[in-house]
Amino acid sequence: MDGLLSQPGLQAWALASIVVALKTLSAGIHTSRIRMGKKVFSSPEDYAMQKLEGSPTHDQDVERTRRIHQNDLEAGLPFALVGLVYALTVPSTLGLWICFAGFPLARIGHGISYAKGLMPQRTIFWAVGFVIVVWMSASSLLSILF
Amino acid sequence: MDGLLSQPGLQAWALASIVVALKTLSAGIHTSRIRMGKKVFSSPEDYAMQKLEGSPTHDQDVERTRRIHQNDLEAGLPFALVGLVYALTVPSTLGLWICFAGFPLARIGHGISYAKGLMPQRTIFWAVGFVIVVWMSASSLLSILF
Amino acid sequence: MDGLLSQPGLQAWALASIVVALKTLSAGIHTSRIRMGKKVFSSPEDYAMQKLEGSPTHDQDVERTRRIHQNDLEAGLPFALVGLVYALTVPSTLGLWICFAGFPLARIGHGISYAKGLMPQRTIFWAVGFVIVVWMSASSLLSILF
Repeated sequence: MDGLLSQPGLQAWALASIVVALKTLSAGIHTSRIRMGKKVFSSPEDYAMQKLEGSPTHDQDVERTRRIHQNDLEAGLPFALVGLVYALTVPSTLGLWICFAGFPLARIGHGISYAKGLMPQRTIFWAVGFVIVVWMSASSLLSILF
Repeated sequence: MDGLLSQPGLQAWALASIVVALKTLSAGIHTSRIRMGKKVFSSPEDYAMQKLEGSPTHDQDVERTRRIHQNDLEAGLPFALVGLVYALTVPSTLGLWICFAGFPLARIGHGISYAKGLMPQRTIFWAVGFVIVVWMSASSLLSILF
Repeated sequence: MDGLLSQPGLQAWALASIVVALKTLSAGIHTSRIRMGKKVFSSPEDYAMQKLEGSPTHDQDVERTRRIHQNDLEAGLPFALVGLVYALTVPSTLGLWICFAGFPLARIGHGISYAKGLMPQRTIFWAVGFVIVVWMSASSLLSILF
């Protein structure tokens, strides 16, 4: 076991996975903080809990942070699916750096850009993450099949 | 190969992952059953299939079970990302029990509390799952870096 | 490391994971293309970026492709959680083929059926993917516990 995480590729994968997980969790925390700050909740019992009148409503800020969170899921699942596969193909050090440093950084950049409504930064960061996962997939495919 | 799943840490990770996967799938089944029971569907062709007039509408019960499912995705993806990493760091038996028994149980508790509208139980179960994944991340990070 | 991906079971898992990842990413691309084609966006800054008046609205085609994407997440996360576990239990070649060829094909079939509004094909493809993941979970559980 120790053997596995002593491999540079697996170590890079592990560190990237941890950062992507924490980034995704932070989007949930961000939503909760906005909900608490604006007193806008998704379930009737949440209003009762806060001893508030009110019922679930749409709120622009809540919807924005929920879109950030949703985008984390949409990007994070493919990364979870191919990240370990790519690491197991023993890629070059350059490949490891680009993918396992680049993807988490792109996702953090995406989240910040989205929260601030910055375009085209949001799309650029999204595209960087997207291209990295497609590259990891293609590279792994070639490595396994040939 | 056999060697990997004979390790206690990997076995605990495997069992926890299976339970979390089945918990998430059960949320989808729950949604389907409510949709069938109340005849509330998301796509026009679903009404045609059931030989019903009608069109997609919001339904409080359907929305509640969809929020449960969504929360399973939001909690399950970070767990999928860091679960194996944590197991590969060869944590203590106590750590394995807390994380790989605690997380699935917390998620099951969260789903039941949410379905029944129980607060603060839902928040407590959610927080237990959240803290466990953050702990797994922090513990793995320290183990890899030092 | 090379040792791991030289195992047939791990290779099958790796190939299936790559296809499922790319399938999920393609749903996101599909959404983007429909949004661009119909000029329907989710955030105000997207309209500004396109130098358009307008504000986020519901669109039937966008909602349909978002449901496809969401279903990919709901099916893909359990697969990500149990796929490697199942591969590590060293299943039979038949089991490997059914699960690691069947699941990606079922998901692709689901996406196409959903995009075209085909019922009951969509439900059948969904059910095939669902049963495969439940089978992988049950088979892995038995293999680990007994």
